[in-house]
Amino acid sequence: MKSVARDSSSLIDLYLKIRKRSEEICAPLEKEDYIPQPITDVSPPRWHLAHTTWFFEVFLLQSYLKGFHFYHPKYNFLFNSYYRNVGERWARPERGHLSRPTVDEIYAYRRATDDRIVKMLQDLQGRDFDKAAHLMMVGINHEEQHQELLIYDLKYILCHNPLQPVYNRPANPDLFQQSLPEDYKDFICIGEGLYEVGYRGDDFCFDNEQPAQKVFLPQYHLRKGLVTNKEYLEFVRDGGYQNFNLWLDDGWTWKEENRISHPLYWHEIDGQWYEMTLNGLRELNLNAPVTHISFYEAEAFSSWAGLRLPSEFEWEIAALSCMPDRHKSNMLENKLFHPAPPLSSDSKCYQLYGDVWEWTYSAYHPYHGFKTVPGALGEYNGKFMINQMVLRGGSCATPRQHIRKSYRNFFHPDKRWIFSGIRLAK
Amino acid sequence: MKSVARDSSSLIDLYLKIRKRSEEICAPLEKEDYIPQPITDVSPPRWHLAHTTWFFEVFLLQSYLKGFHFYHPKYNFLFNSYYRNVGERWARPERGHLSRPTVDEIYAYRRATDDRIVKMLQDLQGRDFDKAAHLMMVGINHEEQHQELLIYDLKYILCHNPLQPVYNRPANPDLFQQSLPEDYKDFICIGEGLYEVGYRGDDFCFDNEQPAQKVFLPQYHLRKGLVTNKEYLEFVRDGGYQNFNLWLDDGWTWKEENRISHPLYWHEIDGQWYEMTLNGLRELNLNAPVTHISFYEAEAFSSWAGLRLPSEFEWEIAALSCMPDRHKSNMLENKLFHPAPPLSSDSKCYQLYGDVWEWTYSAYHPYHGFKTVPGALGEYNGKFMINQMVLRGGSCATPRQHIRKSYRNFFHPDKRWIFSGIRLAK
Amino acid sequence: MKSVARDSSSLIDLYLKIRKRSEEICAPLEKEDYIPQPITDVSPPRWHLAHTTWFFEVFLLQSYLKGFHFYHPKYNFLFNSYYRNVGERWARPERGHLSRPTVDEIYAYRRATDDRIVKMLQDLQGRDFDKAAHLMMVGINHEEQHQELLIYDLKYILCHNPLQPVYNRPANPDLFQQSLPEDYKDFICIGEGLYEVGYRGDDFCFDNEQPAQKVFLPQYHLRKGLVTNKEYLEFVRDGGYQNFNLWLDDGWTWKEENRISHPLYWHEIDGQWYEMTLNGLRELNLNAPVTHISFYEAEAFSSWAGLRLPSEFEWEIAALSCMPDRHKSNMLENKLFHPAPPLSSDSKCYQLYGDVWEWTYSAYHPYHGFKTVPGALGEYNGKFMINQMVLRGGSCATPRQHIRKSYRNFFHPDKRWIFSGIRLAK
Amino acid sequence: MKSVARDSSSLIDLYLKIRKRSEEICAPLEKEDYIPQPITDVSPPRWHLAHTTWFFEVFLLQSYLKGFHFYHPKYNFLFNSYYRNVGERWARPERGHLSRPTVDEIYAYRRATDDRIVKMLQDLQGRDFDKAAHLMMVGINHEEQHQELLIYDLKYILCHNPLQPVYNRPANPDLFQQSLPEDYKDFICIGEGLYEVGYRGDDFCFDNEQPAQKVFLPQYHLRKGLVTNKEYLEFVRDGGYQNFNLWLDDGWTWKEENRISHPLYWHEIDGQWYEMTLNGLRELNLNAPVTHISFYEAEAFSSWAGLRLPSEFEWEIAALSCMPDRHKSNMLENKLFHPAPPLSSDSKCYQLYGDVWEWTYSAYHPYHGFKTVPGALGEYNGKFMINQMVLRGGSCATPRQHIRKSYRNFFHPDKRWIFSGIRLAK
Repeated sequence: MKSVARDSSSLIDLYLKIRKRSEEICAPLEKEDYIPQPITDVSPPRWHLAHTTWFFEVFLLQSYLKGFHFYHPKYNFLFNSYYRNVGERWARPERGHLSRPTVDEIYAYRRATDDRIVKMLQDLQGRDFDKAAHLMMVGINHEEQHQELLIYDLKYILCHNPLQPVYNRPANPDLFQQSLPEDYKDFICIGEGLYEVGYRGDDFCFDNEQPAQKVFLPQYHLRKGLVTNKEYLEFVRDGGYQNFNLWLDDGWTWKEENRISHPLYWHEIDGQWYEMTLNGLRELNLNAPVTHISFYEAEAFSSWAGLRLPSEFEWEIAALSCMPDRHKSNMLENKLFHPAPPLSSDSKCYQLYGDVWEWTYSAYHPYHGFKTVPGALGEYNGKFMINQMVLRGGSCATPRQHIRKSYRNFFHPDKRWIFSGIRLAK
Repeated sequence: MKSVARDSSSLIDLYLKIRKRSEEICAPLEKEDYIPQPITDVSPPRWHLAHTTWFFEVFLLQSYLKGFHFYHPKYNFLFNSYYRNVGERWARPERGHLSRPTVDEIYAYRRATDDRIVKMLQDLQGRDFDKAAHLMMVGINHEEQHQELLIYDLKYILCHNPLQPVYNRPANPDLFQQSLPEDYKDFICIGEGLYEVGYRGDDFCFDNEQPAQKVFLPQYHLRKGLVTNKEYLEFVRDGGYQNFNLWLDDGWTWKEENRISHPLYWHEIDGQWYEMTLNGLRELNLNAPVTHISFYEAEAFSSWAGLRLPSEFEWEIAALSCMPDRHKSNMLENKLFHPAPPLSSDSKCYQLYGDVWEWTYSAYHPYHGFKTVPGALGEYNGKFMINQMVLRGGSCATPRQHIRKSYRNFFHPDKRWIFSGIRLAK
Repeated sequence: MKSVARDSSSLIDLYLKIRKRSEEICAPLEKEDYIPQPITDVSPPRWHLAHTTWFFEVFLLQSYLKGFHFYHPKYNFLFNSYYRNVGERWARPERGHLSRPTVDEIYAYRRATDDRIVKMLQDLQGRDFDKAAHLMMVGINHEEQHQELLIYDLKYILCHNPLQPVYNRPANPDLFQQSLPEDYKDFICIGEGLYEVGYRGDDFCFDNEQPAQKVFLPQYHLRKGLVTNKEYLEFVRDGGYQNFNLWLDDGWTWKEENRISHPLYWHEIDGQWYEMTLNGLRELNLNAPVTHISFYEAEAFSSWAGLRLPSEFEWEIAALSCMPDRHKSNMLENKLFHPAPPLSSDSKCYQLYGDVWEWTYSAYHPYHGFKTVPGALGEYNGKFMINQMVLRGGSCATPRQHIRKSYRNFFHPDKRWIFSGIRLAK
Repeated sequence: MKSVARDSSSLIDLYLKIRKRSEEICAPLEKEDYIPQPITDVSPPRWHLAHTTWFFEVFLLQSYLKGFHFYHPKYNFLFNSYYRNVGERWARPERGHLSRPTVDEIYAYRRATDDRIVKMLQDLQGRDFDKAAHLMMVGINHEEQHQELLIYDLKYILCHNPLQPVYNRPANPDLFQQSLPEDYKDFICIGEGLYEVGYRGDDFCFDNEQPAQKVFLPQYHLRKGLVTNKEYLEFVRDGGYQNFNLWLDDGWTWKEENRISHPLYWHEIDGQWYEMTLNGLRELNLNAPVTHISFYEAEAFSSWAGLRLPSEFEWEIAALSCMPDRHKSNMLENKLFHPAPPLSSDSKCYQLYGDVWEWTYSAYHPYHGFKTVPGALGEYNGKFMINQMVLRGGSCATPRQHIRKSYRNFFHPDKRWIFSGIRLAK
């Protein structure tokens, strides 16, 4: 994990801006919404607010704040996520079983930690500052990741509730009604060649994006646009969920055991399809990209379409070639909180950044020469490099500055409470 | 289920008094405490407040209020507990997965329902009033049962939290420090005979207490006092949890699978025993009755002591003989919220009423001639008459007017989040 | 457990006769049939043959044979069922995972043990003989119990196989075609009174039948005949399995989770009902008693019929009154291996003994004054006295001399691979 | 899947030779050994014998034998493994619950099928013969795969039994006592380059090895010898199973949940390590390759050693470079049935073929351009291309002609009843 050393004051500004955004995301919530954990994957919103704070307390304050003491004797136990080197933890499936500390107490914990971080940064100098600045960038990127998870999790909590509460109303709902560009279903062609993938540069990146390396790719074609709800609905109506020849064996078993017959949050009511969104229940938007599907569903769809999912390197080289502009993408700052038809057409491909994370047919494994960082932060990425698949490109819930073309997101192939979608290759 | 018809105004008074008590029990809670469901047995406090209200809405208002409409179209689905005749329900293990309706919305639901009940009672007359009055008594007794469950559940939520929050501080903590009467471990003797058990009279009772009937009992002895923490601690220290010869086979399996080695809420810290109570963590009170034990533990203890548990009829005939006074017992109104040494000695036995429910070695089966009520209320008791054991006598969380000598409480033999305890027989 | 002391030679005769019968039961099997354990309840036939032998080795030879050594160093580990006092055991669900010792080796173990038992009995004298004779009766009765289980288990193994192999062809299949007596559905009436139940006498009985004791019974009516397949089929066709109001709550849950809609071994093929029997697949015999039903199904049927199941004491007092003759009942020696219409009508009731065990609505609990035997044999019965229901009367798989009116069989309420059936009361 | 068309008589010879070998593998078994299925992964030996026969019946005889009829109406249901296109199947976890057809009946099924295959091949001509000859090669390779599985499965059945039966005694046990070559722990170096991997040629290969394709590899080093028991024992003794920093997160969870602290079949008895083999229990052979370890264990070991596992392409290019001779490797025909120190040193690396399958850090995914065959045989490989890891090189249980450098074996990362081992890279 690399980072640019910054001066203290711009780092404080960045820190406070990111910290504030987590709380803004929670602003529409009732206190009760902070508590439940309807499935193990979903953490209670209060947990995210506390855990990101704990991260700064343990990895920054504990090392760099003079006269450090823990804010509360039990918080290190309660809000450690999975860092075995940091000690015992409250079990993940029981995060929703706790009513205390209260939401107010957690906000107070955030306040106190922010004050201490600011003080720490103001006091640090020289090499200590540089080292702390690097860890600050890790903490900031970590909090950005949790902002996205926070949105997934509060969506699951609200959308799992039969009362179907609305989280927000978008300022510009027209954006959802755009029609599709004519070449949306065309393909770009990338020629055979030896390419470089992975991160090379001086800005922040995660350790899993490095070292940059050469790969050989045969010629391939990548679709310009994403798979839409309309296309996916055809798959559903064509019996895609009933035809085992389209599915990987583990996928079929997963689907049968969980009685799955459509994307998460879709509802069929009197023959009409709806989807539950953070803006409430809406008629299925046929031009928007399909989302909330597992890798298994994405792969089955690609078989049905006679195509395939790209590898993560095919995606990355296409992004290198198309140079998408994340400032024109549907990302967290747009506050749509849902994928939409393409907002702009500045690139040879549409929506490489934003809207939905794109499943690739690449396992999340270490790059050749990958090294974990020493110490507890070495547990950040490396130990998850098995049984998960890579997704690329960011979503409508990803902070804009967080994404880049070498960024590797990863989930188990059955996960679908994330804003995941499909881009086809051949 | 029988009841006394009352006049409208005293019935309204009683209703409002009971309703208010549910809310008083919740007064010390934070909003967050209303939400979690750490185990399936434990329902969130908000659910109890809503479900008891739903009970009045469905079983009273729906039948007797002119121009009735449901307060909310989804509440009948969300707050039905197990009445299949009333329709589909939100699944019990998912009660803690809901953040809405909010606590405020549930209190508003209670207000509106109370208003409608009062209006209904003021308007009803003659035979309709009589029928409604009977159902009102069912609803009131139902709410009393949930008050006790509410206390069990909020205790589990708070005491399961590593922060160990305190629910209340008792007004008279000295009561916990009483010494034991000298004859506490003596036995009374009841002679062989043909006795009548079950409820006979004109006040309210549940259907499971009827019909009253004759039973033959051989001579038996019942201990005057309950098993104390001191005695139970001897059992623990004597290896009682490690000696399979003391245990029923299902009990041993349950104990092994759940790695149980002491009562729920006991903690051993540096060689000293504590118990978590609603008054916070306290040193184990050696003179208080042991509580939060399963039937399996009670039965194993009785084997260790060379004695046995009484049958439910042995208990009832002892109560008939001793005539305990519930007004002198440690019950909900005392607000101790924990069993204590005997508060008074007005009876040949101690603590027959209050402090802890006493496990009997009687299966919860129908009495000879038992009939369920027609309609949905027939589901109240009868369908649970298998695989559960009877407990008698009420606890420190039972409303005083709720208990009587024929009252049959029942739980599966592995449950222990209730205020359960042991009275020995031979 | 009591027994009559016998002289050495008649005891040897009895022993060898019972031992031989276990092997006769296995005679129609292929070697392969001795191995599988399709569900945990079902033990492989080879296991029964070895375990009953182990019982004699451990409880008799180990104490009374001079120069005793174990036949094989691992058999005590492999063939102990549940006697914790005797040491560690091979886990029950893994009995079908073992291919060795081979069937031939187990028969050799039986031969060697029989020889040693005979020698032991010939050598013993005086008080030692008396003590051993008592234990021999326990071992003989134990082997008889396993003969019945053996039939259940080999039936499950064969009838669970899509090839539907036939175990035997009855010598007199006409017995299945009998018509029903005219008074088969009438009831006998037993008057209110104080009765004695439990075993009193000098022959062998199990500890769970004692001490004999007085019970008071109100007047009741018991049906003369058992519930037939015809009646049960009406229940099935009337939607009995779909009407939750007929079921105990735990029963409904069990039925739903296991997707049960008819008795075990029933098959509906092209609108016609068949049942799989040890004589192969046969059209459902409408006059035969329904069998292979759980307590839950029995209880639901009784609700549907507007009647109830008897208590175990009601059954026993009826048997006292009717004095059924087990020599005229359909039991193991008849080699029908399936319940049939009544073979004789010598009694006021039909089929109190034999054909099917009759579910009672009585929990399997200790009698007042029950004591377990000291030592490992104390684990025989007492530790199972929870969560099980009593069945009475023996079945077509019970050895004739094994049954008596005080005999208490017991199974969990969901078990149905046994020859269980229904007699109604009101 | 490709194949060389052969003339009828050499094809018949090959077929009969392979078929005979399956039965030779079973020769040391008792009939009882054919039945159990101690874990779902393990199929009963009788099932392998029947399933491989079914494969020829369904994929060859059904299409190419005149007047075809099924040998038995239920065998298509009983012995289909996972081909959904061929119809319903007996559930895999219940394979051990069947005692019929008997072992003799299954051998008769084999006899009859062999006769019919020979007749079919003698009758076929021209293009039909060519097509059938291709499918014959699939069936023959399929049976070879099951020969290896048969050995794994009968090993599990025998070695899981506390009686520890011996399957065979090797003709030349000295081979296990060889010392290691001096350069066994040295590394070979393969230079950076663009290489071709995958199968290109005219002999038989599986579809998953194709199409052949170019890959770019940076320079890497591969160890000449495998990881030995001695090295692995150091890892065990150094606390490797207790240090979470060495493990992938899913691996640690798997290890904890299954309480694993050493390779499958290792036993520590009085401080000395043994391993259970098909030759019986033996002292741990320190010079032999470690085996029966999961991917998780292999990966944790490589972390402990400061090295890594190779990718499947690194392995394949090393094999291309070293040109190992499978005729000098420890494979099925050697009848050692256990890995041993290297038998020969004809190559720059040791034991690339035979002894143990070598875990790679490559997911089992489709090659670029992979196509499944149409029809039911398309289910052979493709649908398993998720959640599994590639192993390379064959083992002591692999038929010699079955292996080649492009051969891809695959298992889930937790599997370890296979002859799996470790070759390190850096």
